[in-house]
Parts: sequence; C-alpha cells; structure tokens
Amino acid sequence: MPRGVAHLKDELDIVIPTIRNLDFLEMWRPFFQPYHLIIVQDGDPTKTIKVPEGFDYELYNRNDINRILGPKASCISFKDSACRCFGYMVSKKKYIFTIDDDCFVAKDPSGKPINALEQHIKNLLCPSTPFFFNTLYDPFADGADFVRGYPFSLREGVPTAVSHGLWLNIPDYDAPTQLVKPMERNTRFVDAVLTIPKGTLFPMCGMNLAFDRDLIGPAMYFGLMGDGQPIGRYDDMWAGWCIKVICDHLGLGVKTGLPYIFHSKASNPFVNLRKEYKGIFWQEEIIPFFQSVSLPKDCTTVQKCYVELSKMVKEKLTKVDPYFDKLADAMVTWIDAWDELNPTGASAANGEAK
Amino acid sequence: MPRGVAHLKDELDIVIPTIRNLDFLEMWRPFFQPYHLIIVQDGDPTKTIKVPEGFDYELYNRNDINRILGPKASCISFKDSACRCFGYMVSKKKYIFTIDDDCFVAKDPSGKPINALEQHIKNLLCPSTPFFFNTLYDPFADGADFVRGYPFSLREGVPTAVSHGLWLNIPDYDAPTQLVKPMERNTRFVDAVLTIPKGTLFPMCGMNLAFDRDLIGPAMYFGLMGDGQPIGRYDDMWAGWCIKVICDHLGLGVKTGLPYIFHSKASNPFVNLRKEYKGIFWQEEIIPFFQSVSLPKDCTTVQKCYVELSKMVKEKLTKVDPYFDKLADAMVTWIDAWDELNPTGASAANGEAK
Repeated sequence: MPRGVAHLKDELDIVIPTIRNLDFLEMWRPFFQPYHLIIVQDGDPTKTIKVPEGFDYELYNRNDINRILGPKASCISFKDSACRCFGYMVSKKKYIFTIDDDCFVAKDPSGKPINALEQHIKNLLCPSTPFFFNTLYDPFADGADFVRGYPFSLREGVPTAVSHGLWLNIPDYDAPTQLVKPMERNTRFVDAVLTIPKGTLFPMCGMNLAFDRDLIGPAMYFGLMGDGQPIGRYDDMWAGWCIKVICDHLGLGVKTGLPYIFHSKASNPFVNLRKEYKGIFWQEEIIPFFQSVSLPKDCTTVQKCYVELSKMVKEKLTKVDPYFDKLADAMVTWIDAWDELNPTGASAANGEAK
Repeated sequence: MPRGVAHLKDELDIVIPTIRNLDFLEMWRPFFQPYHLIIVQDGDPTKTIKVPEGFDYELYNRNDINRILGPKASCISFKDSACRCFGYMVSKKKYIFTIDDDCFVAKDPSGKPINALEQHIKNLLCPSTPFFFNTLYDPFADGADFVRGYPFSLREGVPTAVSHGLWLNIPDYDAPTQLVKPMERNTRFVDAVLTIPKGTLFPMCGMNLAFDRDLIGPAMYFGLMGDGQPIGRYDDMWAGWCIKVICDHLGLGVKTGLPYIFHSKASNPFVNLRKEYKGIFWQEEIIPFFQSVSLPKDCTTVQKCYVELSKMVKEKLTKVDPYFDKLADAMVTWIDAWDELNPTGASAANGEAK
C-alpha cells in the first residue's frame, strides 16, 4: 500500500486503555488520526482524560461499562489494563489495533519513523504459514518467498488472525528479570515477521497488538486481573494462550515480529512482582495445560471453542487455585456479553457472514 | 568469545564437497585457516583439486570412499553434493561445519565481514528453547533475554544439536521459484537466531550448516542422490526432516537464522527442475509422514532412532516410490558404516562418553 494512505480506515479501530491524558497520541498523529479510537478509561471514572484535538474517539469509563453490560460487567477487569478488551467488544469494525499509552513511534535502522499500524495491517492481510517453517521468514514479504523444500500444497497459507508486534528500548520482561537486569534495553531491530508454528505457544504481549475481530475477537478476552483479583500482568498472556490454541484448532495464523514500537518507560519491578508472583507459579501448570488442549471437532466457531475451553479450565485448573473457577465463569460471561453486543458478529465469527 | 580467536579449533572440522579447485577458500582464509578441512571430492577421482596453500586438509575422492567403506560405500551418493556426509563420518571431531564452494563471506549491515563459523559456534554452544516461543528470539543473545510470560522451568533450555545458517544474495529457491523469479536476490539481513519449535519441520539447507556430531551426527545422512538415483537436491532436506524428528524425540535443539553467507551463483533452474521434480511430488507425502513420526521410548540413541526411522520409511514411503525401499536400506548401511568408523563415537552419541 502506498505511504500516507490510511488503509482500512473504515474497518479498523484503535483501542487504548489508559488512566491518564493521552498526550502520547501527538507523536502518533500522522499515523492514527484517520482512524477511530476507542479509549477505555481505567480507574476513577470521575477523572477527565484529555485527548489531543483532532482525533475521532469514543471513551468508556467504568460507569459506562457497568451501564452497558449490567451484571455481565463483572467479566471486565478494573484497575488493570485488561479492561481494554471491553473496547474489542464494543467495536463494530473487522480489525483492532491496541497499543499502550507509554508506547511511542520507533525508528527503523535508517532513522525513518515506523508506521506500526501499517505493518500490522500488512501482517493481517497476508496469509500465515503455521504448518511448516520458512527459513527466510515471511514468504509474502517483499523480496522473499518460500525456500526450496517448502511443500507447494502449503504455500497458499491460512488467514491471519493475530499480528503481534515488538518493542525497542524497554523490553517486556517479568519482574524478576527487570530486577536482575534493570539497565537492559532492546536495541536489536530484527527485520522479520514470522508465523508462530501450529502447536507452539508464545507469550503474547498486549502493548502492540492487532487482530481480526471477525476471525478471533471472541477469544481475545484479557481475563480477570487487577482490583479484587489475586493476579495482574497476565491478562495478555492468558489471551495469548487461548487465542493460540483456538487459532491452531480453526486453522488460523498468528504472526510475530515487525512492527516495533518504542516502549518508553519500565514499570516498577517491585509493584510488578507483587502482581505477577502467583502467575509465575501458576504458569508452570497453565502452560502444560494449554499444550495439552485438544478441542472437539464440532467446535467450529470461536465462541464454541472458547466456551469449551472454559470448561477445561474449570476442570483442570481449579485445582491449581480457586481463582480459575471464577475465571472460567468469567470466560462464559464474556462470551454472553460479546454475543449480546455483536448479534451479527456471532455469525461473522463462524464464517457465515463472509 | 574474543574476535580473532579460533574457537574450538581442535574440536571442529570443516567439510566441503566439491568438484573444482577451492579458490573460494582464499576469501575465508582469516576465518577457516586455523581449522582442519575435510574435502570430499565428487565426480571424476582422477581429477586433481587444488587447495590454496596454508590450509590443513584431508581429501577423499570416490576411490578413497570405496576403499574405506567397501560394499558399504553404496550409501554414499556420487555426482551429488550429498557425498559430503562421508566427511561427517570420517571426522573425529565433536563439531562439523559444512559449506558449499560457491559461498563467500557476507557483510553485515555495517559492512563488516561476517565470521560465519564463529556465529555457528555461538549457536551450538548456547542452549535451544524448543518448547515455548520467545518473541525476542534467542534469549541467550547479547542484550536479550526471556520475555514476560516465559515459564521459568523452561529457561535452562536444551543442548543445541544443529545450527542452520542463511544466505544473502542468491536465495535457496527450488527450480519453479527460480524460473518464476530469476532476478530475486535476498538483501534482507535479519539479525536473529531462533530455535525451531518442537514438532515443527523446516527445510534444512546444507549450504551453510553446523552441527554437533556427538549429539546428532549419525542422523545427518544426506541420502541417495545424483548418479543412478531418480532424485537430486533433496539430500539436505532429507537430512533435515530426519534430524528434526530425532532432535524432537531426544530433547535436542535446532536453531536457524544467523550467520549469513554470500551465495554467489544461482544453479541452473532447468537442470534443477530435472533433479527436483520427483521430490516436488514426493515431499507432499513425505512431510505428512515425518509430521506423524513418533519414535518409541526405548530409542535412546541417535543410532537407534535412525534405524527405527528407516523401518518406518520402508513401511510407509515405499508405496510412494520403490526408491524409498532402497533409501531405507541405505539408511541402515549408513549407520553400520558410521559405527564401524566411530566405534567410540557410538557411545558418545548415546551420552555415555560425556
């Protein structure tokens, strides 16, 4: 697509969870201004969030969420950026790009500002190749292709559901790694996009993420985190494990790599450790659980897959901690709420509306 | 390791298959001269191959192979670079680096010549992480680590058996892609090394490849190709499929990415098409076969795995073409020959000598 063209501008919403004024948008203005923003205000709903002039946006605070979802609002986290998934639910667009408000425009090695959104759109519009690894990375990138020995029957690829972007400067480390390596900065620009192979899980970060709502939206639930919950900073991880097993089951692709954003500020590792420490234990059992998930053949929609997954979570993970019983219920509530707000979206997600 | 140091110089052999004078070594002199070379001369054994002065080498032609292996020489291909695997067998070192004679020193984006061998050694000496994907690529690279959400129990990694390097300039395309895109050149320098996840197959190219003989050597058989065989240019692919399922079974790692070499000359696509065309059909059945391979638990050495695999090849692939019956027999002959030449290597490979 030519530079300067706002591709998919009527088909993509940008979702931003925040507790502060959105000055960071100034830097993104050349790239984001043509798009519609969905701002999910976390924390105190009486606080006013300032949005720079000229942006087209809707903003939801906790009162709005409660009003719109009623009792089902219980599935949306409070005092945690996990609340962003409410934005996915109220969007009416096919594509979502979500970004944190401490993420700025990165520069490529030539010094040119990176239009992260444009790269995500490229990633989502090109097929993925989850069944066999291509050693020259994305075969659909300019100047690349499938290498010798890549089966021709697999070269059509599959639709891409998720595009996971990366971060220069502050890497997305857990609290222990932050504590051990406080000065580590990511300066390595890896000029690649690749499909995460089928059957392989990955740590999905929500800082710089795009996806196709029609294909995977109902599974992009960021769980119960923050206020009143025993855990934080695992919202995107949870979503990542769920979407990956469902994409694998439905034959959809997940890409990671380009685009980079510039992550400006490390969060407090001590605060993070308190939020994370249960997750650090739990993930040792959660990941083998997700690695062993096998969804039944009759789960042909994202919703069906997700509800089935919630049953497995309840059955297998509740013994890790009672929290997972609550989370499994919230997963079902989330799907109910999704279908309520997206009555046609439900059919789009199972392919009938496409 | 400090620049200019010839790391592992007493533990690594460089294996080069060739039919011509090895002038290409001049360019590699600063990097290769400290190492021992094993040159496998393909084609007419009466021809003299010139090796630039100052290199320490041993050279084997077809007469040597026949003399050393006797009737078992039938498993070594003739008039095909697959003959290189004879060099793996006669080496007495722990590590092998193999490179084609049309591969030159590449430059990194700053213009500095890339010491490919040094990067391969780094790759082999650092663990692999096949059980979970790290989004910042090699967590053991300088300035990198495991990202948030990476299970701590998996951070130790597993030993690396294979390091697969890439190519700038002429990409490793099959004949149809060469024909369709004759002018395509690879100029994308992707500054990453990554572990190919467990359960994922990849197209392994033999042009720029290093491995740990003790860990995986007996599986690094390049099959029956070239003279008298119905197929060519699938020697490295065959080895790649075999080593990957065996590494997955034994808990060993396979890396791909850096280092790059500069691949100077595209081979003739018409000649390649003649060599490849059966493989293009066959791989559509071979790959599902390898994807379904499950080795029994009592296969605890590479040799046992490989012999077991040969039985599966005979049973499942002979119906694709009688060639696979012959290949399965050659796989067993290869192991017999390997064990004959490596009486202690056999025990090293099953871990007893480590």
